[in-house]
Amino acid sequence: MADLVIVIGNKNYSSWSLRPWLALKATGEPFEEVMVTLRQPETRAKIIAHSPAGKVPVLTHGDLLVWESLAICEYLAEAFPYVGLWPSDPRARAVARAVSTEMHAGFTGLRRDLPMDIHSKGTTSGVAGEEARADIARVQQIWQDCRGRFGDIEGEEGGPFLFGRFSVADCMYAPVATRFRTYGVKLDPVSATYVDAIYAHPAMQDWIAGAKGEAPLPEN
Amino acid sequence: MADLVIVIGNKNYSSWSLRPWLALKATGEPFEEVMVTLRQPETRAKIIAHSPAGKVPVLTHGDLLVWESLAICEYLAEAFPYVGLWPSDPRARAVARAVSTEMHAGFTGLRRDLPMDIHSKGTTSGVAGEEARADIARVQQIWQDCRGRFGDIEGEEGGPFLFGRFSVADCMYAPVATRFRTYGVKLDPVSATYVDAIYAHPAMQDWIAGAKGEAPLPEN
Repeated sequence: MADLVIVIGNKNYSSWSLRPWLALKATGEPFEEVMVTLRQPETRAKIIAHSPAGKVPVLTHGDLLVWESLAICEYLAEAFPYVGLWPSDPRARAVARAVSTEMHAGFTGLRRDLPMDIHSKGTTSGVAGEEARADIARVQQIWQDCRGRFGDIEGEEGGPFLFGRFSVADCMYAPVATRFRTYGVKLDPVSATYVDAIYAHPAMQDWIAGAKGEAPLPEN
Repeated sequence: MADLVIVIGNKNYSSWSLRPWLALKATGEPFEEVMVTLRQPETRAKIIAHSPAGKVPVLTHGDLLVWESLAICEYLAEAFPYVGLWPSDPRARAVARAVSTEMHAGFTGLRRDLPMDIHSKGTTSGVAGEEARADIARVQQIWQDCRGRFGDIEGEEGGPFLFGRFSVADCMYAPVATRFRTYGVKLDPVSATYVDAIYAHPAMQDWIAGAKGEAPLPEN
């Protein structure tokens, strides 16, 4: 078994799995991937066999078990510090953590009404309720704020992502980028460009290819 | 204005405010506290004036604004590293973050059915639904696991808390300790002892005293 193993759900649907998977891929380290198909009679037992918290994603690194998407990202940032998974500037890093935790515990309207379904095409009409529409506005406000304040870092930390270089904050918002594209959400120019940047990231392309052709999930 | 300012909600009810407030108090730094009374007609406008995310708690440190309970704790841990707000051992820290993020985004049944109400006395009967009861069991499983694996650290890092010395993980679970006491939840011995330790912490005593005599919140 590889030293690093990540347990994930279906790539087309498991937004929580996508987040730390992108961070892990960004480290460049070799890893093994175990997929547990969600919403099957045996799903819960299979996940519990990996993690007492009973949820994917889960990372094992040697004999250390780390669960929860954001905690896995934090662990990878510490274990592979040269990758720079958080911005190196302490103020940028504080804001990156604020927007990452805001995503981690919030946006329930968006998550409920516009579930991740990468290879589908839909529309927001009749789907996005009032709460989801407020969430969509707030996400764009966050993206504009981060790009405006921290996006134009020169040199090694520069890039098209929220804090210039690809960071954990982008991992956290990547599933939202797919939702915006799946449901054809009309975006401001800064946010539209950012969604393009997420889609163009090689790790994201890899995940999207892996998500192709997955069977639809049974209804919850 | 003080260099460190925290904006919080009502102390008897705002579980999210309690978390970073405890971490801030644990730093020993002087700070200013601004309380916004929740669920009033002017509440949202008052909070938005402090933070574009529109939620308490918010920390300002000089001209830096940090929002979201867990992001504030992470920021304080970095800004005042000698306090040791996270366990110093990387493996313990990884698990401390996993249990902290599990609390941050989960336990919705517990949060819905047993809202924080520090100075009240109730019971779980007729209150805690199936999901909340599963959450109560999972919290105790977490506490037992942390105390069992990491609680017996000798020396400076020793203590009665989840990872020995008081850490962000304890800040995250402190509101749950009050819920268990408010609603008279029957606990295993390890968890009961841990709840006592949370209540005995001087910062917690300070918060509980501050929460006394607050008017009940209007219905949501």
